[in-house]
Amino acid sequence: MAQSIGIVGATGAVGQELLRLLHERKYPFSSIKLLASARSAGKEIRYGDQVYMIEEAVPEVFDGLDVALFSAGASISRTLAPEAAKRGCVVVDNSSAFRMDPSVPLIVPEINAGAAARHNGIIANPNCSTAITLMGLYPLHLAFGLKRFVACTYQAVSGSGVKGMEELEAQLRAWNTGETSAPAVYPHPIAFNLFPHVDAFLDDGYTKEELKMLNESRKILSMPTLAASTTCVRVPVMRAHAISLHAEFERPVDVAAARDAVAAFSGAELCDDPQNNRYPTPLQYSGEEKCGVGRLRIDSALENGLALFVVGDQLLKGAALNAVQIAEALL
Amino acid sequence: MAQSIGIVGATGAVGQELLRLLHERKYPFSSIKLLASARSAGKEIRYGDQVYMIEEAVPEVFDGLDVALFSAGASISRTLAPEAAKRGCVVVDNSSAFRMDPSVPLIVPEINAGAAARHNGIIANPNCSTAITLMGLYPLHLAFGLKRFVACTYQAVSGSGVKGMEELEAQLRAWNTGETSAPAVYPHPIAFNLFPHVDAFLDDGYTKEELKMLNESRKILSMPTLAASTTCVRVPVMRAHAISLHAEFERPVDVAAARDAVAAFSGAELCDDPQNNRYPTPLQYSGEEKCGVGRLRIDSALENGLALFVVGDQLLKGAALNAVQIAEALL
Repeated sequence: MAQSIGIVGATGAVGQELLRLLHERKYPFSSIKLLASARSAGKEIRYGDQVYMIEEAVPEVFDGLDVALFSAGASISRTLAPEAAKRGCVVVDNSSAFRMDPSVPLIVPEINAGAAARHNGIIANPNCSTAITLMGLYPLHLAFGLKRFVACTYQAVSGSGVKGMEELEAQLRAWNTGETSAPAVYPHPIAFNLFPHVDAFLDDGYTKEELKMLNESRKILSMPTLAASTTCVRVPVMRAHAISLHAEFERPVDVAAARDAVAAFSGAELCDDPQNNRYPTPLQYSGEEKCGVGRLRIDSALENGLALFVVGDQLLKGAALNAVQIAEALL
Repeated sequence: MAQSIGIVGATGAVGQELLRLLHERKYPFSSIKLLASARSAGKEIRYGDQVYMIEEAVPEVFDGLDVALFSAGASISRTLAPEAAKRGCVVVDNSSAFRMDPSVPLIVPEINAGAAARHNGIIANPNCSTAITLMGLYPLHLAFGLKRFVACTYQAVSGSGVKGMEELEAQLRAWNTGETSAPAVYPHPIAFNLFPHVDAFLDDGYTKEELKMLNESRKILSMPTLAASTTCVRVPVMRAHAISLHAEFERPVDVAAARDAVAAFSGAELCDDPQNNRYPTPLQYSGEEKCGVGRLRIDSALENGLALFVVGDQLLKGAALNAVQIAEALL
């Protein structure tokens, strides 16, 4: 039966992708409500021939909705997601608000779609760099038994939304005319630069983003003692994240078997022919639903170790696509 | 006694920095000969009020030179460095040609200056990412005993010389006018992109650059069994490399002691106050002689582990500065 769908945060970069994916993937909807803050209410958004009028996201708009896809930040999710759930609307939440809540499933459909059914009205979508990382690690985990991993990320500015992308563009346009454009979204210039700072710092010196990768991986994989050390870095790339991984496994590893495992996994595409300059890059995987996995090789310092390089579109598998896949899994 | 110096590869990005550093650091030279290929011979290069005429680098020009700083690629070094040495000219070679030759010292002056004296006419300057990495790892090695490390790099286009920098600029200028500028130096566009491909691929799936970091670290630190796994990535940054490090030590680690060790080391500058957005970035360390070390924290997956982020100017500590420091150590 066709569903009434809501998109909360419809004016954002992820919101726009959600609208497109619902159409392109032929999600069985009877109607789509685009919801945003009072400031955006009344504005029109076009998709193809259709014109959508933005409505203000208030509790009452969720009456009669079957599913709402939230991507408007953690504080809006904390306020409105329980209101939606109370009204019988299932929430797929892209924020960090409920991810570690034991009563909320945290889902990457290729890995733990079955856990989505045990929801109480809210299902969480993982952090972007975690979801993309797991597209590389999970098939290897199935093959060899993941023990621990080191992840260093190369994260696109789309992770900060439209304003992050606009800031990189503004700085590069200013550079072109010999001017400078001061940073506002980021604490430092991002053009020609990078910084090991994504989300806020915690007392132990890690960022929240780095901690998310550990904690969310543990929850999604149902491996509460999995070990990971992570460094998350923002780079001047538009919309695809890359993650360099050095991972240790329980069982002996083998590159040919690792390649087969990745190639057989529905969430990943093997892109691994270095002699012909084939390995995943952010430009190549921007706009792609699958994540690219390449540079598979025996790790030279870890026991039963493999090194690999994973790239995925931050707005798609890192956000909107995974959310729509969760909604599809519930159908 | 003032020396007669030669710079081989004087028209390159590193060559220009060598000329500047010899002047600014008041290296005791009586004359500087700028040497390059036949194509550049006869061209003039200015430094301050002085005009230098480029001479062709042929064996005879090394007659009467005391020291020659080579930065013109491995094949020119292989041909001309032995000719220079035969004529009594001490070569400090920035290429990979002789680094792993057991008869050639491989020197980072802050670490193993003493080994420079045992040269047979040629001394090797390490790979840029190795030299910068060690500015972070070496003080921690002294404090805790390095056992193994994982390094993921974020390498600037200056590592490919002037032409790498020009290619990034050309692609960004083209983007600004809605055009595209095809890659020539790199196999893929570098603007808004990055790729895990620095130097050529080997049969085991590693690149030469990744292998250099392991082998050169072992030689410089005199630790022939040191373990390291490395991923080297080119990013759209102009001239400073960053390296994310997750390292395991022999003895228990402590963040306060690690910070003290870095702060006390002459090759590094502690830049580590994340709550105030202070950590090293490439823009901040471009043009700086010291390397910045920050994000020091207990590694969450390795035993006796520390994580850190190191940034250094690729043309300076990664190349020209280290070469001049070697020449200074020989005085």
